[in-house]
Amino acid sequence: MSQPFRFTLKAQDGAARLGEIATSRGLIRTPAFMPVGTAGTVKAMFADTVKATGADIILGNTYHLMLRPGAERMARLGGLHSFMNWDGPILTDSGGYQVMSLAKLRRISEEGVAFQSHIDGTRHMLTPERSIEIQCLLGADIQMQFDECTPYPATREAAEASMDLSLRWAARSQAAFSRMGAEHQALFGIVQGGVFPELRARSAQALTAMDFPGYAVGGLAVGEGQALMLETLAVTTLHLPAAKPRYLMGVGTPADIVQAVARGIDMFDCVMPTRSGRHGQAFTWAGKVNLRNAVYAEDRRPLDESSPCPAASGYSRAYLHHLIKSGEILGAMLVSWANVDFYQRLMAETRAAIAEGRFAELAARTAATYGEHDSMGEAEIGAAEQKADFKP
Amino acid sequence: MSQPFRFTLKAQDGAARLGEIATSRGLIRTPAFMPVGTAGTVKAMFADTVKATGADIILGNTYHLMLRPGAERMARLGGLHSFMNWDGPILTDSGGYQVMSLAKLRRISEEGVAFQSHIDGTRHMLTPERSIEIQCLLGADIQMQFDECTPYPATREAAEASMDLSLRWAARSQAAFSRMGAEHQALFGIVQGGVFPELRARSAQALTAMDFPGYAVGGLAVGEGQALMLETLAVTTLHLPAAKPRYLMGVGTPADIVQAVARGIDMFDCVMPTRSGRHGQAFTWAGKVNLRNAVYAEDRRPLDESSPCPAASGYSRAYLHHLIKSGEILGAMLVSWANVDFYQRLMAETRAAIAEGRFAELAARTAATYGEHDSMGEAEIGAAEQKADFKP
Repeated sequence: MSQPFRFTLKAQDGAARLGEIATSRGLIRTPAFMPVGTAGTVKAMFADTVKATGADIILGNTYHLMLRPGAERMARLGGLHSFMNWDGPILTDSGGYQVMSLAKLRRISEEGVAFQSHIDGTRHMLTPERSIEIQCLLGADIQMQFDECTPYPATREAAEASMDLSLRWAARSQAAFSRMGAEHQALFGIVQGGVFPELRARSAQALTAMDFPGYAVGGLAVGEGQALMLETLAVTTLHLPAAKPRYLMGVGTPADIVQAVARGIDMFDCVMPTRSGRHGQAFTWAGKVNLRNAVYAEDRRPLDESSPCPAASGYSRAYLHHLIKSGEILGAMLVSWANVDFYQRLMAETRAAIAEGRFAELAARTAATYGEHDSMGEAEIGAAEQKADFKP
Repeated sequence: MSQPFRFTLKAQDGAARLGEIATSRGLIRTPAFMPVGTAGTVKAMFADTVKATGADIILGNTYHLMLRPGAERMARLGGLHSFMNWDGPILTDSGGYQVMSLAKLRRISEEGVAFQSHIDGTRHMLTPERSIEIQCLLGADIQMQFDECTPYPATREAAEASMDLSLRWAARSQAAFSRMGAEHQALFGIVQGGVFPELRARSAQALTAMDFPGYAVGGLAVGEGQALMLETLAVTTLHLPAAKPRYLMGVGTPADIVQAVARGIDMFDCVMPTRSGRHGQAFTWAGKVNLRNAVYAEDRRPLDESSPCPAASGYSRAYLHHLIKSGEILGAMLVSWANVDFYQRLMAETRAAIAEGRFAELAARTAATYGEHDSMGEAEIGAAEQKADFKP
């Protein structure tokens, strides 16, 4: 537990960055994609399978875990890592985004957000201080400041007020973390400001002045579309220090990810590979495969015969089609696995391309395959995550 | 594919039998428990995990597979084994039981059963000939005659008429199999007769005269209770040839299985380990563990720390409790795995006990642990299986 958080920039190809984050629980190779383990599990996957796909780090959701099993209970159980058998680094969000999208009867104030659990209606309060306390109780290696994810569309005035609130919460989060955080843990600030370049600049500059060990970009992929997202991203990263990792929250499609890497982003998370997997949408180098489609009913080809991932190469599309159509859990298991594996392979290929100075070519290829799909982040696909995905 | 079906009786301890069935796809050690792979998957488990628990053979359901993906389609895809990545032997039922419990608007006649699919309302007809044809198209190693599972309670007259119908269907099934079955495949007859000893005797004798390579006992564990089930079983096996394997369909709890072994049964199948697994009911040597129970919320002990099964020894009860309460697919994956593993371990222990002449002791121990649970078979727990267990 003695290795402190440290980011090393190893190579650049245009604005795309190759790097490495050292943590007490192991290295994170960047650009990195973090599979989402919402409620203490990357849905429908064993933790060691997630690891074997090449994921160095996963994400846990503060909102879900504070409600069930509860942060104090998790601490008594030894923390999130041992709870879910994941010994690599874990990043937790602050709960701010999900309390606004999932909880009932939420009331936001300067102090924080009061809300009722979507599970059992119990009343809770999330503040910057409580968010950090929970993230420390969970034992997260990388923690997020408490923020407000500015909705889209928002007027400039609304976006500015929201951004300023997030800045005040950043200061309170940082103060709380300095009291409660451990040596080996790190707290990231979150840039907000909607799609307004000057607000993004101001937010990034203010957070930079506070000297966080890493910076997230929040409030994107919330409906503004890929073009505006990438434009906003480009002006945002301009104002972030090169020596710190940058994390684009809740993004996204393969094309989104590669385009964001092209604008200097190092870290990503998204429920897309697992959620799409449960719905029978598979990602491959040849594009998306909708396994519900009847054309696969007698297709004996695997998803990708060249893949070393057994889920991608070891089962026919006909079988996957059958499992998904039949609502069989094994369908969710196999397609989630194949998708998480594909995402990790995409990141490995992205890192290799940056190292070898051929990133532009990879970006063009990915855009050609996935470019027709518009940007889609947590905001569009996350709401369904509140429901149990499985009924026995 | 040249090894013909052959049963070898290797040892006896009282009426309990240790044996081995040679098939073209490998040996089946008996007493054997066959995990149920209803719709081409042992629910929530990878096929290689099922194999690794020690299962030599699995069961597939003709009714489910004829409706989806369809028997002719399955044949075009190369058969059930390659479809689901299971290279060991597969036993299929005849569809007779499930068409009566799951299908809509069913109409039974001498010819067979006309019904509508519970999935899409399409009309189908199952006859002894069509049942065998489907089982051959699926490529089942062990097939079942088409029969009527006599309901409980039934009058003697109704049970007799039903039993006689099943005998006529046995002859038609046998004739169809002699035309369509392959050398290496085997067709089992099914003893019916409700809880009436003389009907059971007559059914067993008539089927024995037809010289099947194996015999199933059907129409038990349908509500008559464990005592009456075991009594009926004892009088039934008396009339079955010692040199052929005996299969008790749809049974059951660990206590049921051991008690049935004590009455000369060699083969079992039941959805219990997987279905209970999805509901958070775990089987252990210390008894059933209902993981939904709040007492496990902070229990850091695994289900069974001495188990070599990672699902049983590698995760805390607190984590399993959390997953099951949260409706997480991983909960179903882990508890199903632990349960199938427990059932296979129970069978291995049963085989070892018979070989070493200490079966009575095992039977007493199992009855002490599981005896308080009444007998429960497909009839009680199978109806829910028609629904998709998983909603993405």
